[in-house]
Amino acid sequence: MELVLEAIRLSASSSGLQPYEVLVVTNKDVREKMLPHAWGQQQIADASHVLVFAAWDNYTAERINMMFDLVNDERGFKNQGWEDYRNMLLNTYPQRDAQTNFEHAARQAYIGLGSALIAAADAKVDSTPMEGFVPDEVDNILGLKEKGLRSVIMLPLGYRADEGDWLVDLKKVRRSDEDFVTHVA
Amino acid sequence: MELVLEAIRLSASSSGLQPYEVLVVTNKDVREKMLPHAWGQQQIADASHVLVFAAWDNYTAERINMMFDLVNDERGFKNQGWEDYRNMLLNTYPQRDAQTNFEHAARQAYIGLGSALIAAADAKVDSTPMEGFVPDEVDNILGLKEKGLRSVIMLPLGYRADEGDWLVDLKKVRRSDEDFVTHVA
Repeated sequence: MELVLEAIRLSASSSGLQPYEVLVVTNKDVREKMLPHAWGQQQIADASHVLVFAAWDNYTAERINMMFDLVNDERGFKNQGWEDYRNMLLNTYPQRDAQTNFEHAARQAYIGLGSALIAAADAKVDSTPMEGFVPDEVDNILGLKEKGLRSVIMLPLGYRADEGDWLVDLKKVRRSDEDFVTHVA
Repeated sequence: MELVLEAIRLSASSSGLQPYEVLVVTNKDVREKMLPHAWGQQQIADASHVLVFAAWDNYTAERINMMFDLVNDERGFKNQGWEDYRNMLLNTYPQRDAQTNFEHAARQAYIGLGSALIAAADAKVDSTPMEGFVPDEVDNILGLKEKGLRSVIMLPLGYRADEGDWLVDLKKVRRSDEDFVTHVA
């Protein structure tokens, strides 16, 4: 779990803002409460850990400054190009509508999800990413609204049962290279 | 490059739809044309390869059926649960507005980006993901509109110069665990 969480935390994000947080839900009662809002998909209750990726509901000056100040603090110096870039974001993001900003933040969370899937597989931990839940209800259960967060995707983690997984032996299907990649040479 | 592209192609996506394509732009003229629409950021011209992640502009019945049919063909059988799931998507996605569907598809492309960043690093190839371009202009240059695609993020790849990279020796800064992860135990 530490490796998976660290892989997410170290993932790239737009302008380095890391515009999301990760909740690690192990509490059984909380997971049982989420279950009916995820169409009863049992992995939420059965997994040992359920990660909930929760994106910022908006970009605010406070949030942008928090990340730029952190970078300056950690690096121990200010850089004019970096400060100009901060100002460009401050003059752009907070003025946009909240939904546009949230959608942008949500995309960044999916980079972290990509890292988590690889980190879990590398650690031989089974995972099953799921969007099939009602974000609003999950936000209520986890108290995300008060924190300015909105759930975007969940990742139950654990070890799969030895039996009963109809998918486990099926071929992984993806479109062929020819139908997925175009070379502009 | 093969490893990076394969990592993207094999990435997870919502319902396995892989709702995006990847363009590998090596053509110098095309990259020079994109440059002014990416605020002159020189890595577009300097990198050996520029990946452009282009998401489906909408979910259509044709696209959904294409992926479900492919799965059936590759696995050699039909499964009723899978067919019910196909119908659920057919009765939901095409009816939603195109922008909502595009935003959903775009998120999936970011999972692939997450895989690409790790695959490139693993192969000791330098990469610099960038959203700083005008998608509409890039779509025109690459002829994406006719294909029902919209560019969402670019990933220049190559080997960085030995000198002149002001970022290369700077500390990677991320929020601490305490500010990024919440345990609900």
